[in-house]
Formats: sequence, structure tokens, C-alpha cells
Amino acid sequence: MQREISEEIEFDIEFYDVDSMQIVWHGNYLKYFEKARCALLRKIGYNYPEMEESGWLFPIISISLKFIESLRFQDRVCARAVLTEYENCIKIKYELYNKTTGKICTKGESTQMAVNKFTGESSMICPQVFLNRVETLLG
Amino acid sequence: MQREISEEIEFDIEFYDVDSMQIVWHGNYLKYFEKARCALLRKIGYNYPEMEESGWLFPIISISLKFIESLRFQDRVCARAVLTEYENCIKIKYELYNKTTGKICTKGESTQMAVNKFTGESSMICPQVFLNRVETLLG
Amino acid sequence: MQREISEEIEFDIEFYDVDSMQIVWHGNYLKYFEKARCALLRKIGYNYPEMEESGWLFPIISISLKFIESLRFQDRVCARAVLTEYENCIKIKYELYNKTTGKICTKGESTQMAVNKFTGESSMICPQVFLNRVETLLG
Amino acid sequence: MQREISEEIEFDIEFYDVDSMQIVWHGNYLKYFEKARCALLRKIGYNYPEMEESGWLFPIISISLKFIESLRFQDRVCARAVLTEYENCIKIKYELYNKTTGKICTKGESTQMAVNKFTGESSMICPQVFLNRVETLLG
Repeated sequence: MQREISEEIEFDIEFYDVDSMQIVWHGNYLKYFEKARCALLRKIGYNYPEMEESGWLFPIISISLKFIESLRFQDRVCARAVLTEYENCIKIKYELYNKTTGKICTKGESTQMAVNKFTGESSMICPQVFLNRVETLLG
Repeated sequence: MQREISEEIEFDIEFYDVDSMQIVWHGNYLKYFEKARCALLRKIGYNYPEMEESGWLFPIISISLKFIESLRFQDRVCARAVLTEYENCIKIKYELYNKTTGKICTKGESTQMAVNKFTGESSMICPQVFLNRVETLLG
Repeated sequence: MQREISEEIEFDIEFYDVDSMQIVWHGNYLKYFEKARCALLRKIGYNYPEMEESGWLFPIISISLKFIESLRFQDRVCARAVLTEYENCIKIKYELYNKTTGKICTKGESTQMAVNKFTGESSMICPQVFLNRVETLLG
Repeated sequence: MQREISEEIEFDIEFYDVDSMQIVWHGNYLKYFEKARCALLRKIGYNYPEMEESGWLFPIISISLKFIESLRFQDRVCARAVLTEYENCIKIKYELYNKTTGKICTKGESTQMAVNKFTGESSMICPQVFLNRVETLLG
């Protein structure tokens, strides 16, 4: 039995993400979080296209980032996303690990809420189709 | 009588657009072109929302940029867009002028083609609603 | 006597910041925060160039965002930044107000820590040159 | 004997690169070009860090893009960069191929000129260290 659902991706830091301090501009980490979040949701089988098909959207309602070490051009990064809440909303925790330096560099957390695609109303309970997929994976 | 339709906008270079060489990353100029293009299309009364309402989309089919001088953080920029073709497609020329240094810094040109929103077919003639607005402005 | 130091800027939402849900992609708000933060730091007379000149860098060590309402293409936005802590670190609170709809749309907070440009060491006390400028403004 | 120096990379289209027309925003292709260009320059052993070490910078002085088919969220893309000129400047041609649809989607070309890092003077001849590496690869 699996206790948590998580996914990891790896990528290299590109030149266009680096700022004039020679480090990744802080706003670009939200792209890395999204890369990891989408990989996690794909593993669950409930990424943006499946959300929309099921009649729900999941806008991000809050997100936070904590920067521990900087990332630099050509660093190899491992980004890990873990599903920490799925019943009332989708909460995902993120951890970025710099494989080039061997250090944890960034942590974060996002919260998404279910919004009915047709009525625009938000729901405090996640749709059953999503709950089923999560529970199947959790065994 | 007006010979050409053009529009100018001004803005400051932000920190997040500057790369590790201390200059604006070249790809960001396409944002500045779009800022100027939208201002020009708004002046004509045929920006993205009006295009869509009239049943047409105008995807960019080619764009070119020529970099003469670099832009730096906090530079004040004037971006000018000129409509140079409107009958068969939309061609717009761009010129970015650095007000901080008094130098022309970038030139470019984009071409957009009319695509029917419903059929997805492209047209070699711009829709009449757009031609009318351009001709009204040209007097 | 001024109780707090704050600054406001206004801008329009550009097409390139909008995602496939027709709303501003959440990561782009960090650009809007930076626009407002830089305006505030310029008012204080201690923006990135002055920081570097004084021998200090102020990397962002944490940032959080709360999304209340979405922003859409062509919305007019007022972004307000308020300095809420300046002795041990720089803390700034942000509030984005949608002038087109009359609604508060986003809130957030960032924390920056002083890092000695030459030694790379971080300091729990902000440099005197910055404290002086803040205190002058606070009267 | 190798007639040309080229490199290919593959990647997936992320949600944050897609605009409100459900297609990749045209400006983002310059990031894909850069990803492919850096891979090519790394293969040659003369990417940004090696350029700087050798005392030269290679700013982009012109770039052009031609859009044939749109890219969409989750499309798998192969980007190919080919060195087409290396004696007087660096010219690279790009071709993006959509592996999901089996179609060529974008073409482009960039030109970079050697600029002495210390004097800021541009040179009409590429530095010998770069020529040597290219000629070694070309056999």
C-alpha cells in the first residue's frame, strides 16, 4: 500500500531563466513547480485536460515559495511534487533539489480549489472522479 | 489625410526581463512588440477581442527582429508600431527607441494572416470589417 | 509623520500573460509584485542598483500569493506595495486591485534578506544606509 | 567526415507556455530555439560559459521565425539546431517538429556576432578558439 502519491522530474536550468545576479529569477520557480505538478497530476490521470473533461477547473488559490539556495545556469535539478490533501482541495508540496551541488534549494506549497466549469461555483469537496483515481493509486 | 496608421507606447525595463549579461534577454522583445501591436490594433478598433467577435483569428505567421543596441534595467523605452500592409494580411513594423540613451535599439516586423474561427481556413484577404476600420482611419 | 511607506503603480494586462483558461497565469503575478516592489524601493532610494553600490544584495528568501479574483486581458490593475519590516529584513506586502471590475484580486508578501556582496554572508540586520533612508521617509 | 554540425533536443509543451487561443504563444519559441542552440554550442564545447572564459560574448543581432503549425499543451517537440556559418559570425538554423502530430511546425534562424568582453568592440571574425573547435568536429 502506497502512503503518499508523489512524482519526480529532472531538468536543466536554461539561460533565459537566469537574472542579472547570475541566479534563476525567483518567479521562474513557479514554472518548475507547474512542471512537477503536471507530472504528478498526469500520474494520477487527472491533469488539466481530464479536469476540464470532467466539468471542473482547479485554479490555484494560494502558493508559497521558500528559497534556500540559488540555482544557476546549467544546474541539473530534480523537482518533487507530493499530494498532501485531496478531499476538500488539492494541496501539493514541492521540493527542488540541485543535483549539481547536492543541496535542497527550494520548497513550496500550492492549493487548488474545484470550480464548476459551467456554473463558475467553487466546491469545498473534490469531484468523485478525482477521489476515485487518488484512492485507486493509494490502494 | 493620414498616410499611415501608427501608435507609440512607452514603458520602463523591469528587472525580470534582464539576463545574466545585464541586458534584456532577446526573447523579451517579442513582448514589447506585442504591447505596441495591441496598442496599434486598439487604435484601429480591431484588437484580439474584436477579431474574435468578427469570427476571425490572426495568428502570427512570421516575425523578425534586428538588435542594434541593448536595453538595460530601468531604461525608458518608446516602442512604435506602424501598419504597413492590411489588405491581404496584417504586416506591422516595429521600432524601439531607448529614451535613456537616445538611440534606436531594435527593429522588427510581424505578419499575421486571417484564419476563419469556425472553419480554421486561412484567407488571403483580410475581413471587410477590418478593411473598413483601416480605411476610415486613413481617411 | 508618515506611518508606513507604500507605493502604487498601474498597468494593463497584456495578451502574453494570459493562459488557456483566459486568465492571467498565476506565475505572472510575481512580475507584477516585482514591478510594485521596485517602484517602492525607488521611492525609498534603495532599489537594486543602489543596493549593489552599497555592497549588499537582497535576494528574496520567501514569497507567498493568495488569489481572490482572476485578472483578464486588458484589465486595468493597481498594484500597491507596503514596507512592513525593514530592520532585520525587508518585508513587503502586496495588494492587486482590478480597476476594471472594482475588486481586490491578489494579495501577497515577500521577504528579502541582506547578503554581503563580497563575502556572500547573510546579515540579520539591514545595512545602515537603507535604515537611514527609510527613517528619513518615515520622518 | 561530417558536413554539418547539428544537435537535436526533445521536450514537452508546458501549460505556462500556452496562450488564450490554446496554442503556444509565439514569443515562447525563442526559448525553444535557445534550448536547442545551447545544446548545439555545448556539443561544440563553446557555450556561454566557454565564450566568456575565452574573452568573448556573442549577443544575438538578428533572429527570425516562421510559424507553420501551432503547438499545443502536452505536444512532444523535437527541436533541431544546425550551424550554418561560423567564420564571420555564428548563424544557426532551427526546425521544430511536432512528434505528436508528425508535422514541421516552426523554422527560424539566428545570427550572433563576436564582441570583445573587455573592450566592447565587435569583430567580423570569430575567435580562433571557436574556429578550432568547429573544425575539429567537422573533421
